[in-house]
Amino acid sequence: MVGGGPGAFIGAVHRKAAALDGEIELVAGAFSSSSEKSKQQGEELKLDASRVYGSYKEMADAERQLPAGERIDFVSIVTPNFTHYDIAKTFIEAGFHVVCDKPMTMTVEEAEDLCRLVEKHNTIFALTHNYTGYPMVKQARELVQGGKLGKVRKIVVEYPQGWLATHLEAEGAKQAVWRTDPKQAGVSSAIGDIGSHAENLARYITGLEIEKICADLTTFVPGRLLEDDANMLLHMEDGVKAVLYCSQISVGEENNLRIRVYGTEASLEWHQEHPNYLYVRYPDGPEKVYKRGNDYLADVAKHNTRLPFGHPEAFIEAFANIYVNAARTIAARLAGEDPGPFDTDFPTVQDGAIGVHFIHTAVKSGKEEGWVDAKYAPPGS
Amino acid sequence: MVGGGPGAFIGAVHRKAAALDGEIELVAGAFSSSSEKSKQQGEELKLDASRVYGSYKEMADAERQLPAGERIDFVSIVTPNFTHYDIAKTFIEAGFHVVCDKPMTMTVEEAEDLCRLVEKHNTIFALTHNYTGYPMVKQARELVQGGKLGKVRKIVVEYPQGWLATHLEAEGAKQAVWRTDPKQAGVSSAIGDIGSHAENLARYITGLEIEKICADLTTFVPGRLLEDDANMLLHMEDGVKAVLYCSQISVGEENNLRIRVYGTEASLEWHQEHPNYLYVRYPDGPEKVYKRGNDYLADVAKHNTRLPFGHPEAFIEAFANIYVNAARTIAARLAGEDPGPFDTDFPTVQDGAIGVHFIHTAVKSGKEEGWVDAKYAPPGS
Amino acid sequence: MVGGGPGAFIGAVHRKAAALDGEIELVAGAFSSSSEKSKQQGEELKLDASRVYGSYKEMADAERQLPAGERIDFVSIVTPNFTHYDIAKTFIEAGFHVVCDKPMTMTVEEAEDLCRLVEKHNTIFALTHNYTGYPMVKQARELVQGGKLGKVRKIVVEYPQGWLATHLEAEGAKQAVWRTDPKQAGVSSAIGDIGSHAENLARYITGLEIEKICADLTTFVPGRLLEDDANMLLHMEDGVKAVLYCSQISVGEENNLRIRVYGTEASLEWHQEHPNYLYVRYPDGPEKVYKRGNDYLADVAKHNTRLPFGHPEAFIEAFANIYVNAARTIAARLAGEDPGPFDTDFPTVQDGAIGVHFIHTAVKSGKEEGWVDAKYAPPGS
Amino acid sequence: MVGGGPGAFIGAVHRKAAALDGEIELVAGAFSSSSEKSKQQGEELKLDASRVYGSYKEMADAERQLPAGERIDFVSIVTPNFTHYDIAKTFIEAGFHVVCDKPMTMTVEEAEDLCRLVEKHNTIFALTHNYTGYPMVKQARELVQGGKLGKVRKIVVEYPQGWLATHLEAEGAKQAVWRTDPKQAGVSSAIGDIGSHAENLARYITGLEIEKICADLTTFVPGRLLEDDANMLLHMEDGVKAVLYCSQISVGEENNLRIRVYGTEASLEWHQEHPNYLYVRYPDGPEKVYKRGNDYLADVAKHNTRLPFGHPEAFIEAFANIYVNAARTIAARLAGEDPGPFDTDFPTVQDGAIGVHFIHTAVKSGKEEGWVDAKYAPPGS
Repeated sequence: MVGGGPGAFIGAVHRKAAALDGEIELVAGAFSSSSEKSKQQGEELKLDASRVYGSYKEMADAERQLPAGERIDFVSIVTPNFTHYDIAKTFIEAGFHVVCDKPMTMTVEEAEDLCRLVEKHNTIFALTHNYTGYPMVKQARELVQGGKLGKVRKIVVEYPQGWLATHLEAEGAKQAVWRTDPKQAGVSSAIGDIGSHAENLARYITGLEIEKICADLTTFVPGRLLEDDANMLLHMEDGVKAVLYCSQISVGEENNLRIRVYGTEASLEWHQEHPNYLYVRYPDGPEKVYKRGNDYLADVAKHNTRLPFGHPEAFIEAFANIYVNAARTIAARLAGEDPGPFDTDFPTVQDGAIGVHFIHTAVKSGKEEGWVDAKYAPPGS
Repeated sequence: MVGGGPGAFIGAVHRKAAALDGEIELVAGAFSSSSEKSKQQGEELKLDASRVYGSYKEMADAERQLPAGERIDFVSIVTPNFTHYDIAKTFIEAGFHVVCDKPMTMTVEEAEDLCRLVEKHNTIFALTHNYTGYPMVKQARELVQGGKLGKVRKIVVEYPQGWLATHLEAEGAKQAVWRTDPKQAGVSSAIGDIGSHAENLARYITGLEIEKICADLTTFVPGRLLEDDANMLLHMEDGVKAVLYCSQISVGEENNLRIRVYGTEASLEWHQEHPNYLYVRYPDGPEKVYKRGNDYLADVAKHNTRLPFGHPEAFIEAFANIYVNAARTIAARLAGEDPGPFDTDFPTVQDGAIGVHFIHTAVKSGKEEGWVDAKYAPPGS
Repeated sequence: MVGGGPGAFIGAVHRKAAALDGEIELVAGAFSSSSEKSKQQGEELKLDASRVYGSYKEMADAERQLPAGERIDFVSIVTPNFTHYDIAKTFIEAGFHVVCDKPMTMTVEEAEDLCRLVEKHNTIFALTHNYTGYPMVKQARELVQGGKLGKVRKIVVEYPQGWLATHLEAEGAKQAVWRTDPKQAGVSSAIGDIGSHAENLARYITGLEIEKICADLTTFVPGRLLEDDANMLLHMEDGVKAVLYCSQISVGEENNLRIRVYGTEASLEWHQEHPNYLYVRYPDGPEKVYKRGNDYLADVAKHNTRLPFGHPEAFIEAFANIYVNAARTIAARLAGEDPGPFDTDFPTVQDGAIGVHFIHTAVKSGKEEGWVDAKYAPPGS
Repeated sequence: MVGGGPGAFIGAVHRKAAALDGEIELVAGAFSSSSEKSKQQGEELKLDASRVYGSYKEMADAERQLPAGERIDFVSIVTPNFTHYDIAKTFIEAGFHVVCDKPMTMTVEEAEDLCRLVEKHNTIFALTHNYTGYPMVKQARELVQGGKLGKVRKIVVEYPQGWLATHLEAEGAKQAVWRTDPKQAGVSSAIGDIGSHAENLARYITGLEIEKICADLTTFVPGRLLEDDANMLLHMEDGVKAVLYCSQISVGEENNLRIRVYGTEASLEWHQEHPNYLYVRYPDGPEKVYKRGNDYLADVAKHNTRLPFGHPEAFIEAFANIYVNAARTIAARLAGEDPGPFDTDFPTVQDGAIGVHFIHTAVKSGKEEGWVDAKYAPPGS
């Protein structure tokens, strides 16, 4: 692991998610840019001190020199956005597989470079768009892509949060500081941090790409340097229209990612805060509520489920699904075998590039106050 | 009553709403442009045959000539959009008060003319934006305008329906035919029929006017002549941003008008399909669920309530609130008295003009594919 | 109408419910035991003063002597429990049809006497167990009795309220005073007022009679004379087991009547506070949510519906369904015709007797602290 | 770990829960009564083969002889009910701390013996009544025991499931077979498996013991040997009345444990299937919805939380809370230190004995068809 030092929220989440199934073992890390803190974190995690490094470069270098069976199988990058590119590049070039937090990079150029590097070095790259790890999101995808909704016409995807409704970064709150700092977060705060999850979720479920964006970006909190609210109209492939919005100032909202997809035959709705349920509605019959853990669900939904119905699963399990799927694909590669049928179901380096392109295009639309072209295909897609 | 002949949905609703409290008596009508059908409806309603008219003109003329205590106190106009203007004008000029369905007129010019006529003839004019009749909408208004949400920042108001997802008008379905016919409905189907309710609801609760609109209009159903889906970004007064959308092709949605208002201190959410509840959320305390019929609610909410808590009220009661408030204001005027403190709480002719202007501006934005200016103040405002 | 004078809650509800469809006209009344108050109420309702009576006896007598087309078609009794018997008896013996509030009488003997009187005088008698007027309750009944749940095994029916959690009757609150006074309410407060609704609802939906009761009655509020909480285990016909409870001290509950019925093939759930929805659950497929106003519902549910889907109906409409069905049955009788297929769907005098027997049996079980036999068939059943 | 061999559901849950926080390492096990299967499971878990045992006796013996720092710190018992006693006794007598699944033993005598053994050997014993591990259950306990509900009057606790609605055990379904077999499950199926969770949850939140029980037990499925449905009336300490029911034949219910507690000042409601929310209701103010992860919650709720608000936690985390609290208490004991302030918050051997006594008393009441005395205090309480 690179990142995830003392006090980091997402690093701990990654570790719990990776640990859940007992298939992934944390053996080495460069947990902080301070080698002191990295060491401290390593001790807390009871790692072998010789594999706790002061920097990611040191780590890539040292691990590469270990014998094949002893070195790390992949690296997990859980640092702030602005460092992803350099770290990922270093490990890919050292021949390591990568699991990386999102957004993938600061610029589209960097993202495309990673696409090319992954292809060149033939490594596996997984991006932790964790919300697509939920079983009922996978069920939604199966319904849509299996034609159960008819032709898709409209998508509404929202991601309101309220935690940045005040100038929290001025109080030094770590999570707020880097996410609102252009140097660390990039050109966007709300879109980069959560809007890109909404975009990825819509694409994952429907398989449709965005073609045009008209965005309205606002920085509501005085003194803030990046937008904390973004409302968008989207044109997607095949004449599909969409509303996408994300917000960090929607007071009282916690982490309310939710999506509705309307087709000619049926529609569906899913809420991240109640992730075990999927609502499917029809013009001529009762609404159906699909519930996680049941036999009547699609195989891929059942495959990504650990507990029986009624024993709720949640965020950690969804996150773990990204990890375990990626890890099994990596393990298969290391063993020279084909991955299992559901193992390659995780976001790729191309998904990462599309996400970065989306962020930049939305920001551009916001600046230009109008519709902008958003068609894009990253290298290797 | 003008309109509301055999088979008309909304006419029957108006009659039930008006009858509910026993304060309004239906005594005369021109129920159909066919005098046969008008007569038939009058008989069914057990009206005095001499006051069932073959046309609204005949009715206005005859009623005007009745002695003061015997003629109608006001007329209720429940015909398709394109006839509202002529009928309203006729009755206003004959000195009658008017209750009129929405949207008020086909054009902004007609709307403004009605504003001037109402002023000139000093009559009372109520528009049946019935959703503002719900007690919990009034509670929401009290919370927002009493500052309980702090400064408003963002509004999300949605009105998805699915009933026009197929080419229903081609099958002759009466409700569908006139709503999708430019000659009868005007420049818009979805925005005119339901989007204007969303606009009115947002304005009613927040007191804020729209300044700019960027709309994306779509006609999804082949062969349809007007848009059946509209997504909009709005700029409102005081830097408030909004998302407003309405849809008639959102399969599986019934009549899902709902609104969220986010302020600096709190936010609120209300759903028309669950109208007895109002959700208020805070950054630093539990969500509060306000429930209709309780003592802790605002006086205006209690005033517009008939049943104790837990005995749900719904659509008819909200509709009846528009009627009874308007009727009491009219009765006070007829008696030469001041109306009661809550009696004037109903949508006015100016609200009607603002609604018509909104419809036209949204359509314009849709055509121009970009932001358009939406500032507007009707005569008499 | 007998009862429903100034300040009476349920009298006003009866009047609004009866007025809703324009099929029932209030023409006469003895609104209070005080002829002063009766007169006052009659004036407020704009009734012909000659038909506002000082007592129900006077009213029955005077109306009987009016010519057939002029006298009342039926009487509506909305007085406290202890007066129902005498009033109903008087009107039945005068040849009038009766709509009566529940519980029907104070004793089983009185109830049985009414059964015999109704038979003898061949009159129509409707009891306002209003909750069975909800369309989705009728849908539930259709599903159960049409075998869609398989064989019923278990019923859970609850009716918690919280409004009597304090000694409200000591403060003179009118609604509380008579309901907790053994002289006016009878042997029971909670069971009589609301438990009997739960019992009627369970019987209506499943068609099953109670055979044994084990009840635990509590008077929580010091100084109160009747029970304010009752929990019961029931054995019903065909080996069905049930839990039934009612409570007036369940703080924070409003009017939360709800029922769950479990069969071998499916189960259903309905909540009075969200009456437009019916939840049906299966062992091997998604939950289905039936929604009022849709074409896919049973004919009887659609017949008892006024508004399209998504336009919520509620308490008043359900109450009105009891009235309008009874009124149509009475009108058919008066016209010498057969009632329509759905018109006789209202609670009868036998339902009333079964309810009164239930109340007494539950109280007996509570006193004896054990299971008691509850099998019962009233005269005429 | 003893038990949790190939195919065991609950063993895998215990392992995931224990692994989640990285504080507990599985190092040894007797996973099956077949040493073949035990070995297979050990390999799958990548354990040191020398510490995978063919029987729990062998394991207790071998581990006891390892040096203090190398042997297991505690044993986790996840076998069917009938084996708990012998295994727990063996390990306690060998000086090991124990985490044991529920119900603790087959008989009250065995349960009391464990109470005495734990006292005698001064070991720590935790029972996995996992539902009390949920943060919002802890919040509920804080509210009740901090007097925020006033004096408790009534409790309603339900645990319906539907998975045993058919004769599943006849098809050889492993989970069904042992739970419905008197030799393996004991005197009860539904009460033992899930009713005891309901009992424990009610006691945990309110701190009140049961004094009298009147139970109605039914075996609905032909051929089944134990009850699959049980409805109970309870008298608890301080005049509190309760309804408790559990069911395995409630078709369509998944794992719907839920509790409502009514006090004089407020009431609360919690649902296991939506565990991140706690509903608190008042007679004179809006309902409050407490949400996991917020600063306004009690310290103990926050202490048992891993993720920020809006990032849902669920079953695994609650289970892990039992484990990690017990483990920290054990670690403190091993280190000769005092446990942290929240570490001892897990069900004890006395809770286990009370649960076993409850099961037997409820069965007795069912057989006797009436109220039975249920007062009980286990050794050491």
